[in-house]
Amino acid sequence: MANNGISSGKLRGLMKLADSNGRFKMMAIDQRGSMVTKLSEVLDIEKTDVKYDDVAAVKTLITRILSPNATAVLTDPIYGHPYSLTEIPRDVALLLAYEESGYVSEGASENERLSNPIENWTIAKAQRAGTDAIKLLAYYHPDASPVTLKHQQKFVKHVGDECEKQDLPFLLELVSYALEGTTKSVEFAKQKPDLVIRSVEEFTAPEYKVDILKLEFPADLKYTTEYQDHAFYAGDSAYDLDEVKDVCNKLDEASTLPWVILSAGVDIEEFIENVKLAAAAGASGFLCGRAIWKDAVDFYPDTAAVRQFLENEATTNFHNANAAAETALPWFEHRNFGGVENISLSKQSENWYQDYS
Amino acid sequence: MANNGISSGKLRGLMKLADSNGRFKMMAIDQRGSMVTKLSEVLDIEKTDVKYDDVAAVKTLITRILSPNATAVLTDPIYGHPYSLTEIPRDVALLLAYEESGYVSEGASENERLSNPIENWTIAKAQRAGTDAIKLLAYYHPDASPVTLKHQQKFVKHVGDECEKQDLPFLLELVSYALEGTTKSVEFAKQKPDLVIRSVEEFTAPEYKVDILKLEFPADLKYTTEYQDHAFYAGDSAYDLDEVKDVCNKLDEASTLPWVILSAGVDIEEFIENVKLAAAAGASGFLCGRAIWKDAVDFYPDTAAVRQFLENEATTNFHNANAAAETALPWFEHRNFGGVENISLSKQSENWYQDYS
Repeated sequence: MANNGISSGKLRGLMKLADSNGRFKMMAIDQRGSMVTKLSEVLDIEKTDVKYDDVAAVKTLITRILSPNATAVLTDPIYGHPYSLTEIPRDVALLLAYEESGYVSEGASENERLSNPIENWTIAKAQRAGTDAIKLLAYYHPDASPVTLKHQQKFVKHVGDECEKQDLPFLLELVSYALEGTTKSVEFAKQKPDLVIRSVEEFTAPEYKVDILKLEFPADLKYTTEYQDHAFYAGDSAYDLDEVKDVCNKLDEASTLPWVILSAGVDIEEFIENVKLAAAAGASGFLCGRAIWKDAVDFYPDTAAVRQFLENEATTNFHNANAAAETALPWFEHRNFGGVENISLSKQSENWYQDYS
Repeated sequence: MANNGISSGKLRGLMKLADSNGRFKMMAIDQRGSMVTKLSEVLDIEKTDVKYDDVAAVKTLITRILSPNATAVLTDPIYGHPYSLTEIPRDVALLLAYEESGYVSEGASENERLSNPIENWTIAKAQRAGTDAIKLLAYYHPDASPVTLKHQQKFVKHVGDECEKQDLPFLLELVSYALEGTTKSVEFAKQKPDLVIRSVEEFTAPEYKVDILKLEFPADLKYTTEYQDHAFYAGDSAYDLDEVKDVCNKLDEASTLPWVILSAGVDIEEFIENVKLAAAAGASGFLCGRAIWKDAVDFYPDTAAVRQFLENEATTNFHNANAAAETALPWFEHRNFGGVENISLSKQSENWYQDYS
């Protein structure tokens, strides 16, 4: 890629997603399943009774108040985009999610997860609607059954091909899960480095045509010696901080593409540490949702209180995350590109407009 | 349009082209024919001997230094885009020209002008390449022969249809010309108001699907009593300033769409007056090239001198034009939209993502 240049749409898209120094400070507000769950708790109703309008209203409010802090905003085409499109400032890039929220397990082995597209939604539609890039979340466990692995790989490949066709940046989010037991355990914390790194090894293969990886922090600070809260967990830690730093470095070695960190709804203090550790290892920023704004939703339907939280605590959270990302590696400094002086258009010539297809 | 909302891609595109208050401060660097002519004069060579690399180099330099002052930059896909793509900041929107530079007269009556597309270039390609909107220049004289009128109308309609299909904003530039004599005459100055207004009446028809009009100033200040330079022209003036203001108001009445003013290479002082008068009548800003940067080209190939002019005089020109546009009407305040509170997505609903096609 570094030697052959970058295609026009992907290059312009990457420039827009990051700040002018090449660092990604992106907000996610594309949550659907987890937002419905949260609202059902807050409103004390069944999930099936949560109204579309309430989900859309919360997303609109969060987008309106927090977007100005972001270099890009990731939303979804169902609840998010139709009502919050005008809330995203002109200089904040737009990312649209491609996958249906959640996963299905039918057709897969026990506990395995299959991702699927949103019905009647395409990458060509997302482009016409004005998106600057496509985000796909794929659940992935490298030890899942061949049927599940093949399904997920095929799905990612499809999106990679479509993004190439539309010349849109492809941001792939990988989320691991437990084949046995729960992700909230020291056992899973111990597996995490291996799961994240092996998933990265798979999806950096050129056939997937990914441009940016959105990754889980490859360890769980709650089970790290230096950060362990013994009231929460009293057993042996999974690793110490030096080991976590090693894991981050190994992840960076594995990632032949620029990568950013997701928050998976951890508390903001933990997320800031994740960003700092990831940035020190070579990450290019973050794409973070709930760690920044989740507590605002607790106040719904008191929209004045929601707004107040967003304008104060959540804005401070965003500023702190942005400050932590100041040490991140600009995407064009990633070894895949080799510095801003090596960034150029592919097929750059006086015939570019004819050759471009 | 105001009642039915705006489609997603056009809405996002319009937001990006203007500043956050809805005013267009756009730079044109899509000149091809006129740039080749100018370089042939400056380098004292035949037009056919002007090298592609020189045209591309001048455009790259102008784009690099002046783009940060603009809300959007219009360039061309031949000399401009492939070399200056990375010079346009992430928060400055991109417009790409669709028409072949200049015009042909074959097949038309004497002195008439036919516009044509760039070969092997499409609006779908422009979208994939990352453009935020399409610009089409169509020469137009409402008294041209039916064959010419039909050709130009059909061409504009084609672009309107394609922009609708790709959901990209369509910015139509109309340039009049003299069927007899020259445009540099008091006779033509007298015809100008009628030519501009009748052209606007034609192309604001819904069938052309135009979003923004890029118009000539509808009078020529050089032939206006208060501005007439008698060393340049000693005869009777074409109109006085009050009459020019009336013409601007009539133009605004005719324009059922937001409109911006082009510079047509007039000197910066005259252009600033054009912007002020147009803004007072209801224009939404400008899309200006040569009035801002033309004198920089005189220094080529001394690129240090070109750069110095751009960083000083041309930057000052741009600041002055931007200041003049501060009184322009935000596009969403145009009566076609009726205020920011009336801006919404067309087919806004929970089924938007399915209905959007």
